[in-house]
Amino acid sequence: MVIVGGGFGGLYAARALAHRPVRVTLLDRRNHHLFQPLLYQVATAVLNASDIAVPLRSVLRRATNITVLLAEVEKVELANRRLVLDRGEMGYDALVLAAGASHSYFGHDEWEMLAPGLKTLEDALEIRRRVLLAYEAAEREQDGAERQALLTFVVVGGGPTGVELAGALGEISRQTIARDFRLIDPTKSRIVLLEGGSLILPTFPESLSRSAADALRRIGVEVRVRAIVTRVTPDAVWLGGEQIRTRTVLWAAGVAATPLARTLGVPLDRSGRVLVEPDLSIPVHPEAFVVGDMCAFLHQTGAPLPGVAPVAIQQGRAVADNVLRRLRDAPTRPFRYRDRGSMATIGRAAAVAVVGRLKLSGLVAWLAWLFVHIMFLIGFRNRFLVLFEWAWAYVTWHRGARLITGPWRGRGAARGQ
Amino acid sequence: MVIVGGGFGGLYAARALAHRPVRVTLLDRRNHHLFQPLLYQVATAVLNASDIAVPLRSVLRRATNITVLLAEVEKVELANRRLVLDRGEMGYDALVLAAGASHSYFGHDEWEMLAPGLKTLEDALEIRRRVLLAYEAAEREQDGAERQALLTFVVVGGGPTGVELAGALGEISRQTIARDFRLIDPTKSRIVLLEGGSLILPTFPESLSRSAADALRRIGVEVRVRAIVTRVTPDAVWLGGEQIRTRTVLWAAGVAATPLARTLGVPLDRSGRVLVEPDLSIPVHPEAFVVGDMCAFLHQTGAPLPGVAPVAIQQGRAVADNVLRRLRDAPTRPFRYRDRGSMATIGRAAAVAVVGRLKLSGLVAWLAWLFVHIMFLIGFRNRFLVLFEWAWAYVTWHRGARLITGPWRGRGAARGQ
Repeated sequence: MVIVGGGFGGLYAARALAHRPVRVTLLDRRNHHLFQPLLYQVATAVLNASDIAVPLRSVLRRATNITVLLAEVEKVELANRRLVLDRGEMGYDALVLAAGASHSYFGHDEWEMLAPGLKTLEDALEIRRRVLLAYEAAEREQDGAERQALLTFVVVGGGPTGVELAGALGEISRQTIARDFRLIDPTKSRIVLLEGGSLILPTFPESLSRSAADALRRIGVEVRVRAIVTRVTPDAVWLGGEQIRTRTVLWAAGVAATPLARTLGVPLDRSGRVLVEPDLSIPVHPEAFVVGDMCAFLHQTGAPLPGVAPVAIQQGRAVADNVLRRLRDAPTRPFRYRDRGSMATIGRAAAVAVVGRLKLSGLVAWLAWLFVHIMFLIGFRNRFLVLFEWAWAYVTWHRGARLITGPWRGRGAARGQ
Repeated sequence: MVIVGGGFGGLYAARALAHRPVRVTLLDRRNHHLFQPLLYQVATAVLNASDIAVPLRSVLRRATNITVLLAEVEKVELANRRLVLDRGEMGYDALVLAAGASHSYFGHDEWEMLAPGLKTLEDALEIRRRVLLAYEAAEREQDGAERQALLTFVVVGGGPTGVELAGALGEISRQTIARDFRLIDPTKSRIVLLEGGSLILPTFPESLSRSAADALRRIGVEVRVRAIVTRVTPDAVWLGGEQIRTRTVLWAAGVAATPLARTLGVPLDRSGRVLVEPDLSIPVHPEAFVVGDMCAFLHQTGAPLPGVAPVAIQQGRAVADNVLRRLRDAPTRPFRYRDRGSMATIGRAAAVAVVGRLKLSGLVAWLAWLFVHIMFLIGFRNRFLVLFEWAWAYVTWHRGARLITGPWRGRGAARGQ
């Protein structure tokens, strides 16, 4: 059988199939599993890329029934039970599709270059680069208005990712680099969080949404609700007739399933996710399953489940079980999501969490957040390093990974030694 | 006064001028100081980029007389005491040029794309990417000859960088990833170190060169001396009529001073380095100094000093002293390099070192190497993290930073979740 994608859904399916009587091939276009819930910390220079990513091969090293291949799946031919890869093809008897999601710019794909989203390590490093370069450019800028535009950061989207990014930007400007510059005052930077709805963190209870907004305002973030972005240009974001001059826009608003779903030729929902059966299989193709952000599972609440790691993990394990059931000709089992709660962090000692009927905010929510995220990081090494980086950042207010890497203007002159 | 370049020469000059009665501007096109002696460990996936790099701003945060600017110097106009930057210009009363070196392909600049060198963090990440991708491609390759070419790694240049890269590649193939693949056997990879002269590590005593070559052979590296590369193609390296089929060539052979030196209009040596006066100033321009890899200092041995960190550090401190002397109208002092020894590491518990008349090899040289490199790393945080990564790699044989990042073929399909 073949698993497409090594994110939470695919990896947990593979782990559940390790050492079982089935030959598994796991395909991913990256060589690593990424712990996406902490990706914003790579973007905001707390963590290194390798702190939250682990090579798929090394996670699955001992599972000799699993082969990991670096490959991109371009098309799924359900009728022929065949995958078209970037090079060659591959047949399958059973299939798990776990290829995740990408950003949605609501029909404005031209905004992608101006307002990068946060899905991959490269995205995170690009956001880090833009934020740090904006401060460097401001330090060199003579023109007052342009300098203020460089010191204005706009985050679009008030979900957990947007809240976490805005909170981290607030802390960077107010604390981390407050004394690093000579000509600008980073504590004067303007950080704006734009949310289209009437509340940030709309999936949380209203009281927690309000306390999150208060916590953000305390660290200097302007929270604007009912703010619909109508235009993004290289030097501004427009809300209808209003213009916010900025050089740095980060996109945390829309999510769309991967284009791979469209190659299936089966019914999709509005966001491009595959409408699955109760056992997570594709209608008429009981040997093919879909999990995680690619999947629209409507059989529990009538609406798709949220695109979060716990859903993908539980679905990955469920399809592994269903694949094994099919092997021994047993009936598959319907999937049911057990919601163990959700949380979002705002900054130092500030978070919101909801666990069953329990609503937490402030320090206790933050400690719960720390605990859960460390527990789910894969591998001792990563857990230890992340704990160390967090402790270091907490004690010193510094951020360890403040490096700008990536393309530079031209080559040759005056490179650092 | 202005310092161009935040490598060892420029940073140590700046540090020596901190809190002194002089206003200093440090220009670099990167935002970080890079601990280049450990760069090969980033390339070979032991260390993270941020373990060996530290933001210049944060190193110099407390020195309020020093302003750090991210800028690229395109031209130095010595006669007008003016720098032409990527944006704007900047005058100076005193100048320290410390812009370092880049690779030399001996007139074959077209080889650069095929055989990347190792000078910057981006270089290191590109080399890591190529090495890891070669194994991934080999795992997918059906054709036997092509698979062998993918599993062949050629390092050109038998100096310390080449020896360290080849040794690390030997360990990766024989240990780190030995059991990570299902279809290939990484321990069968071929690692070839090519040196044009008759001995590797030519600046070391002959007995150490020989013991280094023996140590490399023990970990599976083919050491070839008197091997002159005559051609590099996308799938082979040519030594005259002989062809070595390979997909991965790493360049550790030639060094050339930065093109910035050519804009000075003063005499340069064959490698493009500035011929300086005994006090490291440029002839006829006593207010302008050159240090590190950009500088050809012939007044001690008749030949230029080696392009290593201790030379740059001592020169940086010496010019800082000479700048202060000029401020109080005192005569400048001639520079003299104190050679405290040199070392190169081959692999796990294997290195060579020469300190005065003492020649060390094996475990004791390796421990000395560890000690010296940890001592010179700037900042507690980096020291601690590097020690942890090394201890982890030593105990587990794993490498923590085995991530492939960078450009991927196309976008959109089947991204990992």
